[in-house]
Amino acid sequence: MNRLDILKKLAIKTESKMVLLVMDGVGGMHTTDQPKTELELAKKPNLDRLALEGCCGRSMPVSYGITPGSGPGHLGIFGYDPLDPAYDIGRGVLEALGIDFKLEKSDVAARGNFCDVDAGGVITNRRAGRLPTEECVKICKELQDAVPEVDGIKVFIMPVKEYRFAVVLRGEGLSPAIADTDPQKEGFKPKDIESSEDSPAARKTVAVLTKLTKKYYEILKPRATANSMLLRGFSSHPGMPNFQQLYKLTPAAIATYPLYRGVATLAGMDILKTGSEIADEFTTLEENWSKYDFFFLHVKKTDSYGEDGNSAGRIKIIEETDGQIPRLLALKPDVIAVTGDHSTPPQMKGHSWHPVPFLLWGKYCDFDDVASFSEGACNHGRLGMFPAQAIMEMMLACAGKLKKYGA
Amino acid sequence: MNRLDILKKLAIKTESKMVLLVMDGVGGMHTTDQPKTELELAKKPNLDRLALEGCCGRSMPVSYGITPGSGPGHLGIFGYDPLDPAYDIGRGVLEALGIDFKLEKSDVAARGNFCDVDAGGVITNRRAGRLPTEECVKICKELQDAVPEVDGIKVFIMPVKEYRFAVVLRGEGLSPAIADTDPQKEGFKPKDIESSEDSPAARKTVAVLTKLTKKYYEILKPRATANSMLLRGFSSHPGMPNFQQLYKLTPAAIATYPLYRGVATLAGMDILKTGSEIADEFTTLEENWSKYDFFFLHVKKTDSYGEDGNSAGRIKIIEETDGQIPRLLALKPDVIAVTGDHSTPPQMKGHSWHPVPFLLWGKYCDFDDVASFSEGACNHGRLGMFPAQAIMEMMLACAGKLKKYGA
Repeated sequence: MNRLDILKKLAIKTESKMVLLVMDGVGGMHTTDQPKTELELAKKPNLDRLALEGCCGRSMPVSYGITPGSGPGHLGIFGYDPLDPAYDIGRGVLEALGIDFKLEKSDVAARGNFCDVDAGGVITNRRAGRLPTEECVKICKELQDAVPEVDGIKVFIMPVKEYRFAVVLRGEGLSPAIADTDPQKEGFKPKDIESSEDSPAARKTVAVLTKLTKKYYEILKPRATANSMLLRGFSSHPGMPNFQQLYKLTPAAIATYPLYRGVATLAGMDILKTGSEIADEFTTLEENWSKYDFFFLHVKKTDSYGEDGNSAGRIKIIEETDGQIPRLLALKPDVIAVTGDHSTPPQMKGHSWHPVPFLLWGKYCDFDDVASFSEGACNHGRLGMFPAQAIMEMMLACAGKLKKYGA
Repeated sequence: MNRLDILKKLAIKTESKMVLLVMDGVGGMHTTDQPKTELELAKKPNLDRLALEGCCGRSMPVSYGITPGSGPGHLGIFGYDPLDPAYDIGRGVLEALGIDFKLEKSDVAARGNFCDVDAGGVITNRRAGRLPTEECVKICKELQDAVPEVDGIKVFIMPVKEYRFAVVLRGEGLSPAIADTDPQKEGFKPKDIESSEDSPAARKTVAVLTKLTKKYYEILKPRATANSMLLRGFSSHPGMPNFQQLYKLTPAAIATYPLYRGVATLAGMDILKTGSEIADEFTTLEENWSKYDFFFLHVKKTDSYGEDGNSAGRIKIIEETDGQIPRLLALKPDVIAVTGDHSTPPQMKGHSWHPVPFLLWGKYCDFDDVASFSEGACNHGRLGMFPAQAIMEMMLACAGKLKKYGA
């Protein structure tokens, strides 16, 4: 029996409340040039107190040496096997969910870029010179009004940010098995619409998209900039079992960035409106405390600063988050888990495969002798190194939400 | 290839002798109220010596956060995947094996309760007021004599303890896919016999059991108490490969409680007659030392006292067991492993998911710097945290009973 089937069988509804605090990319790395990580350098008395009272370890997001994208990173934390192709979340789906679009199971979504092309149709700038968001909104509206549907298939085109947009097709008998039109390089033309499979649905979708892109190209052509567009990441809702079905939870997500709201939506979480600051997210937590028994609270900027190679920025965000922990404790949660979805060492300016510090806090967590929430300290924790997928089941167990397995 | 197939291929018969000492539920938990576990509090110089000379770690019975019942807990220790549905041991099978009934592969077994019902047939006491065992023995004999078979199917009904009994059907073409008649609640009538599948074997079994229960109800009806009965956990021998086939061992089990003898029987172990004290079990070990090369010695009361929330009782049992270790060492075993099938923290008064201290002792165990057999100490051991299923293969390896894998 697979792990999710077992959890589904064992999970029970109780009064206890859990908070999963994900500091995106919080894991760091030790190098000769920078021998201490941001978690090791930051002043974070509250997180350290949770570590002292809790049980620590290091979470392996996907597998040894595998650097996860944000999608797989969060899938793992939420208990889904990020290597299971059934849970493969396409970029199009993530983009659509991230702008709070109500994606239906049979929709086909794609991520789009407005781009610049020369007179011969060759791409000269894949991002249309980082088009301002207002301009993106305007163009999308124009395209939406001009092409509301194709051959009876509804078309939604929606601005995301700067040059980025999302397109969703809605109707009967569509397939997401469509190749990118984006060649991922300048100096090439956008590719024709093609399918990777031969099926009636794929043929129908190719026909619809060929007509649609032709219309879009015609409308965009006269423009000085953003005079063409590229599509990639065609995909549909993976239809995974949600937190209600799997864990008997009433879950909510608090996240400032679209992508994370998107993954949380796939897992069945209610997306709570929140502000742009970390303190705003904790205010949202307080305001909604009585309505849910599981909260996913996502702090983005530990990752963003990591990607920028900004170690000081990461330290600041860790300290800022730490300052909010007393507000979380004041709510008297039963179980808290703190971790990241992957590491983002500033030395690498990007995501990495390094296992991520993890702490589990709660009455039955079985505290260990780790007194600091950091890579080095968590490495000696009682939980050892474990797959990120175990996080939800450990939280549930600690909250008394799992029955015994077998007689 | 799955792990058991590999072990089957690699295992060789040798002269070396191994002892697996399972202290049921020995793992404890650290809480603010009770910051030291029983293993950390007990005086156990002999177990600590084994830890010092051996190699330690923590065994994960089933999976992170999953609390095992005794069946899955022992299956894992014996090397079988407790999540594999092929090894799912039904309650009926466990009950029958526990009273040393020689279950055949095609038998269908159920666990039974004598209960009280009112004039309308509604259950008023699911356990017939904790019927005395002598009475249970008497009723079972009466039912056995009255109904030795139904439609050519042999019926065995056997007392277990108090209100509990086991029923086994023996004959051709039976199915264990039968639902419980026990509604698990008072205020309801026993359910009719129904099957969860539609097959000739299921229909035949339903017909036999319907006649059988009707006869039992008629015989019991005139009684003042225990005037009805309930059946649950219909199941058949899981037919797993045994220790002889898998590991080339000649194995024996020493256990005072039925359920553990039952699981050991499924694994192909000879069940040795023993007394009720821990010292009796070690006497049985001494007396049978020359006849076997693998001994499973089970100490029950670490678990029982844990379930009672009795920390002092657990400490006493650990110390009592410790006192017997010199007798074990005097036999000059080649390999010893000591662990539990799960944790039973007295703070939780029940089984828990927390990983269990483990020690492996033997010439080639690769000793580490752990000097105490306890949760905290074993956590820093060389073996780290590992699945319980790895215990048998580590013991076999350490005893020189596994060939090299591949050229």
